[in-house]
Amino acid sequence: MELWTEELHRLFPEKFSTSEEQLSKYATDAWLVSRAPDGVFFPESKEDVVALMQFAFSRGIYVTARGGGRGYVGGAVPVKGGVVVSFEKMNRIKEIHPIDGVAVVEPGVITGVLQEKVKAMGLFYPPDPASVMECTIGGNVATNAGGPRCLKYGVTRNYILGLEVVLSDGSVAKVGGRTIKNKTGFDLTSLFVGSEGMLGLVTEITLKLLSFPPLKACLSAYFERMDQAILCVNKILSSGVLPAALEIADRFTLQCAREFTKGEIPPFDAHILLETDGSIGAVHSDIEFFEKIIREFQPKELTRAVGEDACEKLWQSRRLFSMSLKASGLTKLNEDVTVPRSRLADLISLGEYLQSHYGLIVACFGHAGDGNIHVNLMVDWSKKENREKAQEALNVLFDSVILWNGSITGEHGIGIAKLPWWNKAVSQQTRLLHEKIKKALDPKGILNPGKFV
Amino acid sequence: MELWTEELHRLFPEKFSTSEEQLSKYATDAWLVSRAPDGVFFPESKEDVVALMQFAFSRGIYVTARGGGRGYVGGAVPVKGGVVVSFEKMNRIKEIHPIDGVAVVEPGVITGVLQEKVKAMGLFYPPDPASVMECTIGGNVATNAGGPRCLKYGVTRNYILGLEVVLSDGSVAKVGGRTIKNKTGFDLTSLFVGSEGMLGLVTEITLKLLSFPPLKACLSAYFERMDQAILCVNKILSSGVLPAALEIADRFTLQCAREFTKGEIPPFDAHILLETDGSIGAVHSDIEFFEKIIREFQPKELTRAVGEDACEKLWQSRRLFSMSLKASGLTKLNEDVTVPRSRLADLISLGEYLQSHYGLIVACFGHAGDGNIHVNLMVDWSKKENREKAQEALNVLFDSVILWNGSITGEHGIGIAKLPWWNKAVSQQTRLLHEKIKKALDPKGILNPGKFV
Repeated sequence: MELWTEELHRLFPEKFSTSEEQLSKYATDAWLVSRAPDGVFFPESKEDVVALMQFAFSRGIYVTARGGGRGYVGGAVPVKGGVVVSFEKMNRIKEIHPIDGVAVVEPGVITGVLQEKVKAMGLFYPPDPASVMECTIGGNVATNAGGPRCLKYGVTRNYILGLEVVLSDGSVAKVGGRTIKNKTGFDLTSLFVGSEGMLGLVTEITLKLLSFPPLKACLSAYFERMDQAILCVNKILSSGVLPAALEIADRFTLQCAREFTKGEIPPFDAHILLETDGSIGAVHSDIEFFEKIIREFQPKELTRAVGEDACEKLWQSRRLFSMSLKASGLTKLNEDVTVPRSRLADLISLGEYLQSHYGLIVACFGHAGDGNIHVNLMVDWSKKENREKAQEALNVLFDSVILWNGSITGEHGIGIAKLPWWNKAVSQQTRLLHEKIKKALDPKGILNPGKFV
Repeated sequence: MELWTEELHRLFPEKFSTSEEQLSKYATDAWLVSRAPDGVFFPESKEDVVALMQFAFSRGIYVTARGGGRGYVGGAVPVKGGVVVSFEKMNRIKEIHPIDGVAVVEPGVITGVLQEKVKAMGLFYPPDPASVMECTIGGNVATNAGGPRCLKYGVTRNYILGLEVVLSDGSVAKVGGRTIKNKTGFDLTSLFVGSEGMLGLVTEITLKLLSFPPLKACLSAYFERMDQAILCVNKILSSGVLPAALEIADRFTLQCAREFTKGEIPPFDAHILLETDGSIGAVHSDIEFFEKIIREFQPKELTRAVGEDACEKLWQSRRLFSMSLKASGLTKLNEDVTVPRSRLADLISLGEYLQSHYGLIVACFGHAGDGNIHVNLMVDWSKKENREKAQEALNVLFDSVILWNGSITGEHGIGIAKLPWWNKAVSQQTRLLHEKIKKALDPKGILNPGKFV
């Protein structure tokens, strides 16, 4: 009897691969776990995806969609094998319409490529995940990607007007539309966004675009102590003016960056980076406004940057924080927890406690404005003892976050990495609701199996 | 045998009513159709709602939730009878937390009351439907209410962090949470928001609050011709600075207001009202910025207002537009269609065509910034001929909007009013998707029956 992989080869000689090289390439994302699929499918059109899903549905074959493979939680790892669908060949920008403020794209478009393209037309696609030059719009939709600018501009979901989705049985549904406001039926668009490939395969995305702000400005401030930085963050957020971004970094992050850069980073224990954008007059005025607030909290160093190039320099130095952690050679467990803002100080203290108690380096930095702090546990993964310690520390971290009414993930999703805490984070009744919806849309459970539903 | 209404009386002597007066009061909303329920239930707690739903589920009794009854589409009308659940006694503001930027409320809280309360604490709840002093947060959640400020600030959905929902079988699910970013599972919060009471009954709402902007300013501009106003709108929206609100009104709206106010409104054919808010410096700068743009399009009259009181005066005069239409004594069919912005001019022209072709007054005004224009057909409802003409005109209107990739409703929802065009507006496959989700969550179809699924 012909194997199903052989059958797919015959049906899609150019679009289906089972080469060892491909199987291994598509076995993993940016997290720790890998599992090779039985085959990789490279659709070039919606019709290809429909044909694949009809095939998979009739035979009960598992299908896991994949964007740029930059996820931090193993969401795109085909834990039960089957077919990985890589959308890299569906990367056309079909339309950019300046007056409607709309772009229509295929899922494989690189987010940064779209941003550059629309910017050249005076338009703005705000979501800015760290992997913006490698991740895809399709992947951003699957994970509801965020980034620093989401404080003012919102996450990916806020920019998705409509989707074309191939469902598990190969049928095609269009949800949402092309207008900014739309009250026609249930909000199925938001349901698919962030559903981690478990409800359908997105083949076309209609995005909302803004017009590009004329000017931006940044403030970079170092404080002697973290409590000053946190009070400053709260004061900024109660000022009535929302910055575009408001990032924070703790002592261990700065220390690591200081070692990495051999002294470029000054010897202080907390850092804030603020960005504001808008009309030229407003930006000049607001940067004064924010600087005045920051000065109340006696920063040890304060740098102002006006204009894109000057701001970019400050952001580059912030990106060093992440790079220096990676350069340590240790495995970086990047936990994107989110807490209500009144718990920011508690979260930072918890990081210090985990560090002293478990003997692991714990570096906290991220999006203070929305309480979304990346707690990075730096672990020598080669040692079993350290892996166990890390596991214990993660348990304490997630238990605390749940106790504080926080979210165990603010940007990355559940995937495999957060799966052990899914039952704790979400009540049984709410899990049942997830299951009902999953069952309704994917009755055979073939889409991205082995994940949280 | 005891009737189910008698049984509910016995179970809830103080909370269930079948008096003629109550049945008639809860038979209708702000639209044309009414149908008395068999009884009205006034829960005072989640437990009451759970008990009712357990009762209704076991006997297959229809349940229709109701907020302030200010909907424009008959969404809260119990078209198949059964129980209307009025949340007016569940109107507690449970918590306002300034640092977290969060409020926790029961569904019966009047939106305007919440806004005043949080404003006194320096906080801001942006969604501003016209009926803000009469509608409730629960109703806003059911309909995903909008308003002028949604251009910059987004609709109700963008402010709902978490919900407690009683499902059709009386089970309780908590969806979302208390954090601004949350990637834990599917976005069930957005699914319930705007679902018009067909998926569950919301008993607690966790809202996101901003801090109140220090200053606002407005510009009111009259133009000789509508095409100037539309070009001006497009220029503003491509300036890189998003106003808080950007409203437009056409010739017939202004004419009506002119007659109503006996000449207060100047004799021009198009009007724009713009609002901007932020820090004091930024507002002063941005109002100059926008005024400069508007002047390029040669307005006949231009008024600038700075500060809340002065702005309020300009908004009051805009509110006259709606009042003057109502004062005409005719029935106002308020169709909140939304079109891609490049179709604004076509939509206004269509209004003029419908007016001349069907001999009805058609007045267009509304939220130009997001393409959401209220097309008001003014009809002498006592005449059958006029009702038929209106029906024909509505067919042409909705057909055109669908052809232009618009939405047949941008704010009000489908309800009963838009039901005749539901099948045209949404593909069969997408309707099937709605049915699957409805079936999964409300298998007996007892929640707000007779609506779009």
